[in-house]
Amino acid sequence: MTLMYDQLLNIIRDVDRISLNETILEQHSKGMTYHTPQKPELVVYPQTKEEVSQILTYANERCIPVTPFGVGSSLEGHIIPAQGGITVNLSLMNKVVEVRPEDFLVKVQPGVTRSQLNKELKRHGLFFPVDPGADATIGGMASTNASGTNSVKYGTMKDQVLGLEVVLADGRVVRTGGMAVKSSAGYNLTSLLVGSEGTLGIITEITLRLQGIPEIIVASRALFASIEAAGNAAAAMLKSGLDLGKVELVDQATIQAVNAYKNTDYQEVPTLFIEMSGSEQAVKKDMELAQEIAVEEGCQLFESESDSLARAKLWEARHHVAFAIQAANPGKGLLSTDVCVPISELPNAIKETRKLIERHGVEAAIFGHVGDGNYHAVLSIDANDPESVKKIEEINQQIVAYALAKGGTCTGEHGIGLGKKQFLRLEHGEAVDIMKEIKVVFDPKRILNPGKIF
Amino acid sequence: MTLMYDQLLNIIRDVDRISLNETILEQHSKGMTYHTPQKPELVVYPQTKEEVSQILTYANERCIPVTPFGVGSSLEGHIIPAQGGITVNLSLMNKVVEVRPEDFLVKVQPGVTRSQLNKELKRHGLFFPVDPGADATIGGMASTNASGTNSVKYGTMKDQVLGLEVVLADGRVVRTGGMAVKSSAGYNLTSLLVGSEGTLGIITEITLRLQGIPEIIVASRALFASIEAAGNAAAAMLKSGLDLGKVELVDQATIQAVNAYKNTDYQEVPTLFIEMSGSEQAVKKDMELAQEIAVEEGCQLFESESDSLARAKLWEARHHVAFAIQAANPGKGLLSTDVCVPISELPNAIKETRKLIERHGVEAAIFGHVGDGNYHAVLSIDANDPESVKKIEEINQQIVAYALAKGGTCTGEHGIGLGKKQFLRLEHGEAVDIMKEIKVVFDPKRILNPGKIF
Ligand SMILES: Cc1cc2nc3c(=O)[nH]c(=O)nc-3n(C[C@H](O)[C@H](O)[C@H](O)COP(=O)(O)OP(=O)(O)OC[C@H]3O[C@@H](n4cnc5c(N)ncnc54)[C@H](O)[C@@H]3O)c2cc1C
Ligand SMILES: Cc1cc2nc3c(=O)[nH]c(=O)nc-3n(C[C@H](O)[C@H](O)[C@H](O)COP(=O)(O)OP(=O)(O)OC[C@H]3O[C@@H](n4cnc5c(N)ncnc54)[C@H](O)[C@@H]3O)c2cc1C
Repeated sequence: MTLMYDQLLNIIRDVDRISLNETILEQHSKGMTYHTPQKPELVVYPQTKEEVSQILTYANERCIPVTPFGVGSSLEGHIIPAQGGITVNLSLMNKVVEVRPEDFLVKVQPGVTRSQLNKELKRHGLFFPVDPGADATIGGMASTNASGTNSVKYGTMKDQVLGLEVVLADGRVVRTGGMAVKSSAGYNLTSLLVGSEGTLGIITEITLRLQGIPEIIVASRALFASIEAAGNAAAAMLKSGLDLGKVELVDQATIQAVNAYKNTDYQEVPTLFIEMSGSEQAVKKDMELAQEIAVEEGCQLFESESDSLARAKLWEARHHVAFAIQAANPGKGLLSTDVCVPISELPNAIKETRKLIERHGVEAAIFGHVGDGNYHAVLSIDANDPESVKKIEEINQQIVAYALAKGGTCTGEHGIGLGKKQFLRLEHGEAVDIMKEIKVVFDPKRILNPGKIF
Repeated sequence: MTLMYDQLLNIIRDVDRISLNETILEQHSKGMTYHTPQKPELVVYPQTKEEVSQILTYANERCIPVTPFGVGSSLEGHIIPAQGGITVNLSLMNKVVEVRPEDFLVKVQPGVTRSQLNKELKRHGLFFPVDPGADATIGGMASTNASGTNSVKYGTMKDQVLGLEVVLADGRVVRTGGMAVKSSAGYNLTSLLVGSEGTLGIITEITLRLQGIPEIIVASRALFASIEAAGNAAAAMLKSGLDLGKVELVDQATIQAVNAYKNTDYQEVPTLFIEMSGSEQAVKKDMELAQEIAVEEGCQLFESESDSLARAKLWEARHHVAFAIQAANPGKGLLSTDVCVPISELPNAIKETRKLIERHGVEAAIFGHVGDGNYHAVLSIDANDPESVKKIEEINQQIVAYALAKGGTCTGEHGIGLGKKQFLRLEHGEAVDIMKEIKVVFDPKRILNPGKIF
């Protein structure tokens, strides 16, 4: 038992919610990625904002590093306590505080996961649209400005978060935003905190916008002879003003990898996965129009499903892409690139990435959120082999350099964490100096998730 | 000629772009509202970011106040140079820098107006959706986080601005964001600058998202026996997942005022104005569904039009509301309230506002963006009569107090300016201290639009 343990026990007063256990420390030392692990000195599980406030007051007085932790699914080493100290695990703050169905609003604690939230919302005929691949916490998703396949229709976390309760480094509890859908009252601190990766404060409550569950969802799969044709079709659909739900592009080599992994026989060509939702009649009409557009761009096969099982089956190939790479490279870690480019650049960016990867003789799944210009190359990486790490990092660098040259960003949805720090100034230049000064406003002693972003 | 004039002439080198002319100073001393005018010492019209940078470097060294100016249509005294100094009129920086139709993007200088932009975009089959009532500049709209009737479908300025070029108080030119539709790379400075009312920097270029011009637009007018019934119908439409374009509510007394003003015979009942856009078939189906929902909630008459002239005619009553009040009170100023409440609260808020206004024996047009919970009471005010000013300000205060008590905001789209400074701390509490510290990061000598927001 350390002095810090005793002092925090004085705050938490519950031995079950402070841990020095090696396994627990280990679990909080790394994410699912290849970044070098580092253990915190202890892990604490607050249940109230008052406890969070007291923990931060304590840590701030003593300049102890504090790393907030949701479920640790972030992909850039965000939750690795790079300078040790206290990890604040927010998973016990997992109450849905208030559902306001008539206002399309919900207030949640940060540890609520997106599947937990959607289960709770279902009986109100509502849902929360942001859908990263992992069952992340709302606090973690807000902190990385997460998004997913739904963002072409509904936007990213920054578009959903209306208000926050945040504990600042010195223990002050501050509220930003509110329950109005829009506001022009003063500086938008809410959007500043969204995506700040636990470096500006610990979020203890989040007010989110919700959506009505649509009457019907229709999913389609469209096969093309080339990446360009698929990209052109997606662009034409966007331009036509169709109310698109999801538009995902998977490249040929990735479909091959899925076939090898699942023993399936998907036709091995570039494939668009499309989804639309809304009123039954309108969606059916719009999907017909989408098909016409696809055919005009040379689509070879277009099949649609509305039944939920059949839809899942239709999307299967898209959902298996990351696992296919993992299965083909047992025991290795993964690195997922995350650049986002102006949307017309996406087909070329994917083609160039595929060539680059082939030149380096590695395997990768490549798939893109075409409606956003965001795509991922999921690469297997052997963290114990410096050569492997070097090669994969080089590929990542080249993918980022390409995206930045096109006016894009090094990260569309995963965030900077440890892994993309080298790219921040390349992308944002002198604006990074302003970001650093803002960091000091919120956290003068730099105790919050130190070593991340900058 | 003053020393300041000579020194600025050294920067601008064009006598046509610096003015000490009384009429010009007068024009830059007030908006369209009742706030006490105040003239700048001179007005300068830069044409490049380099000039803006030199003007700010000059002013910052000497602690001279600088007020950015678009077309001056803001409604809270934003552009009144409260402490004198230099007004920087950005209307000559009005180039559409680059249209990227394939990326649904445009880069514009800040002085481009929204009608100018949409004219330019039309031939690309694209449009920019944010539509405040005035033909404002994009720079002004970004600086107030403006919105309008389209925001229920497309969002506000903060949802459209992807990147900014900004000149900071000390003359540094900084870029935020980029051309990617989404990003998680560092703190979101773009969203922080949107809505900052010229207090953090002068925006010299804006990258905006665009939308495809929809195949068809259908507008409808739905009459109800009560505000509640109209509100319930709007809520049910929102919940059903219909792809709503606009949903505007006008109360009974306002329709009466329009009839008196235009000599029309609109049925004097609470009226919903609805618009949908997209592919022809889908929109028609959705509008049928909207009608069914309206009828279920007791709608007495529902008429739709798709032809552009007929649509304009149908919306006429909505478009005349502010003018009706102005016409009925010649020679007086206007005060427009701008609260935004959680959407289910809107019908009651409007009813209470109507009662409040009747209790005070004044006239007002009341209309709301039902999809956002934002509504305006447009009140005529006699700036020369302290009693009138006091009465109207009291009404405004009570409307704001009601909205804040419901979790809303004092301003949904107009901003704080001079007029709503008293409400900022009521709404945001201690978060205002953080805003003030951020102000100092950007503008240590507080030369940028001093006296606004705080
Ligand atoms: C298989 C898989 C698929 C994925 N797919 C996607 C995808 O499609 N889109 C996408 O955007 N991401 C995706 N991700 C990444 C990940 O799910 C997101 O980054 C998610 O937002 C992280 O949430 P979390 O709860 O795991 O947060 P954590 O990883 O625990 O934390 C993330 C960051 O937020 C901070 N933080 C956490 N909680 C708080 C709080 N309450 N207050 C302040 N800071 C806090 C942490 O310090 C850390 O910096 C995927 C990950 C995996 C493993
Ligand atoms: C009839 C009428 C109807 C209206 N309807 C709406 C509506 O529906 N929705 C709505 O949101 N608003 C509405 N408004 C208000 C107004 O149109 C908006 O506030 C608009 O955004 C102001 O734009 P502007 O170009 O006139 O800016 P200005 O009034 O000139 O300036 C506004 C603010 O932005 C700052 N600023 C201007 N340009 C820059 C720049 N380049 N860099 C930094 N700061 C800058 C100024 O200092 C000032 O603080 C309406 C106004 C009128 C008169």
